[in-house]
Amino acid sequence: MNSDLSSLQVQDIGEQGLLERLQCFCPPEMIGDDAAVFVTEPEQSLVVTTDILVDGVHFSNVTTSPEDAGWRAAAANLSDLAAMGASPLGMTVGLGLPGQVSVSWVERLYQGMTECLQQYNTPIVGGDIVRSPVTTLAITAFGQVYPNQIIRRSAAQVGDAIIVTGVHGASRAGLELLLHPELGQNLNDTEKTVLIKAHQRPQPRLDILPILQQVLAFYSPTSPLFHSPTPLLSIAGMDSSDGLADAVMQICRASGVGAILERSQIFLPTAFEHWLTKEQALEYALYGGEDFELVLCLPQKPAYDLVQQLGQSAAIVGRITSQSTVMLHDEEEKFPDQVLSLSQGFQHFNH
Amino acid sequence: MNSDLSSLQVQDIGEQGLLERLQCFCPPEMIGDDAAVFVTEPEQSLVVTTDILVDGVHFSNVTTSPEDAGWRAAAANLSDLAAMGASPLGMTVGLGLPGQVSVSWVERLYQGMTECLQQYNTPIVGGDIVRSPVTTLAITAFGQVYPNQIIRRSAAQVGDAIIVTGVHGASRAGLELLLHPELGQNLNDTEKTVLIKAHQRPQPRLDILPILQQVLAFYSPTSPLFHSPTPLLSIAGMDSSDGLADAVMQICRASGVGAILERSQIFLPTAFEHWLTKEQALEYALYGGEDFELVLCLPQKPAYDLVQQLGQSAAIVGRITSQSTVMLHDEEEKFPDQVLSLSQGFQHFNH
Repeated sequence: MNSDLSSLQVQDIGEQGLLERLQCFCPPEMIGDDAAVFVTEPEQSLVVTTDILVDGVHFSNVTTSPEDAGWRAAAANLSDLAAMGASPLGMTVGLGLPGQVSVSWVERLYQGMTECLQQYNTPIVGGDIVRSPVTTLAITAFGQVYPNQIIRRSAAQVGDAIIVTGVHGASRAGLELLLHPELGQNLNDTEKTVLIKAHQRPQPRLDILPILQQVLAFYSPTSPLFHSPTPLLSIAGMDSSDGLADAVMQICRASGVGAILERSQIFLPTAFEHWLTKEQALEYALYGGEDFELVLCLPQKPAYDLVQQLGQSAAIVGRITSQSTVMLHDEEEKFPDQVLSLSQGFQHFNH
Repeated sequence: MNSDLSSLQVQDIGEQGLLERLQCFCPPEMIGDDAAVFVTEPEQSLVVTTDILVDGVHFSNVTTSPEDAGWRAAAANLSDLAAMGASPLGMTVGLGLPGQVSVSWVERLYQGMTECLQQYNTPIVGGDIVRSPVTTLAITAFGQVYPNQIIRRSAAQVGDAIIVTGVHGASRAGLELLLHPELGQNLNDTEKTVLIKAHQRPQPRLDILPILQQVLAFYSPTSPLFHSPTPLLSIAGMDSSDGLADAVMQICRASGVGAILERSQIFLPTAFEHWLTKEQALEYALYGGEDFELVLCLPQKPAYDLVQQLGQSAAIVGRITSQSTVMLHDEEEKFPDQVLSLSQGFQHFNH
């Protein structure tokens, strides 16, 4: 047993000891049984998403504090729920840990996860802790959604407007600044902080859902304001966790459609203007990933209303076409049209 | 790219290629979005359990084929649902894989999981596949239960009968036979097969739940056969995945009670009689673990009815006491009373 509290290791207190220390991060009624029990609203469907994160592959002590690793893991899963239109109910945490990991590292990881989750009153409802040669974090988040409000990748239709929330490329830029601080010489402290925070503390766009539902309700056949025989609005979408280009291409592939995107409509962090070339900035925005924004496809009129309601935090960046490609277009005609390709995006296992 | 199909590795086809091959193990409607959607019954509570399993710690190619590793992982999580009284709805699978793992290993793992799940019409509803230096399997299972049928560890009451399903020690014996085949010289082939199968293909006791619910309904205040003002029956219990002794002690600790167990009532595999000493047999039964049976505590009369209904597959092994210990008693008085201790049971991280 190690007597120095700050260097107390997982192997010093064992699974039971560690679980006892982590109980303060869970609601008391969730603890002590083989499984957690909680209540869902009737008439809503259950939505489930799962992620596995490995030390050295998905996070690293070089760029990420344990609090940030925890926050990011929680945020990524909440973002997957947001991408389906679902509000979160709870999250389970499975941890594989080498015995030499410090107890404080694990507590700080949980601190970061709960800080992110508490914004949405979402509890950690269960978990498992085991010995492993490599620190591994397995997260499963679940939420609920009314069946007619589910957002699916496969629902995009020719003519739909493509809405993108927030700015893109900030998370990737923040990561570059953490790995290579010398790259940030042209940036002031605020700009650096904003970019680094975008990487360390991304926000899942659950805030978009109630506004989206309001717009949907306005256009639904049961609304008193609805006068045409249009079918119930279906919304296509996903999050941009693997990059904006990836998100648009995944939606197009799932829906059997193409898209055209306007270069000038893709919102970039303001700091990019005096820091990166236009090509580099666009590369970060399209392929950087981990911005955890939403890409949504819906008919022009409700799309326009939604962007009006969201204000600065969203833009119509293009539209769905009957082509088989995703084309990047430059209104100013300074750049030729360019076909986007998934091979530039993020792929696991590639050499 | 490796042209020999049988030695195709994960790194040869990447995450997307592997996901495509594994889609045949999932219902088609669950694939292709950020999260899976499924429907729960109104008025039932949601039950969630999660496990993380690591190569070399929880499974090994020495004793476990990939099919068996998959089966066991699914069975363990279904058993956690059974332990709460919940019927399964779905399961998510997170996989961390070194690039050198063969694709066929992963397909065989999924084969084993789905073989176990199909018995209960339970789909794999989502997953994640990532690169990892060590093969890691993260499972989360979902089920549903009517709130008044939830089984909790903390609900045991003094005087309750303790029911144990099935036999104990078989899984541990099977593991010993796999690790040290020479130990099985006194066993015939059928006996060996039964013990090894108990280790490789354990059955979660979901079959107990409808029978338990029938007995509960009989004793509930709304039953026309119910004449006394007794409160609604509450059932304590858990599964014996970490050993029979552990299960009884966890229930006692959570309920603030003690227990007395009758040595002679603990059902052992018949092969133990001419193979192990009485002490060794009892050691396997109490501390072996992974039998995935149920330990249930309920008042004497419904307990007796339940055991009658379950027939050969269950026995009343003791009762809940107001003591603070779990005592092992020998009716025949050949052995002195013995206080059971968790320190003999399974603990992670111990040296």
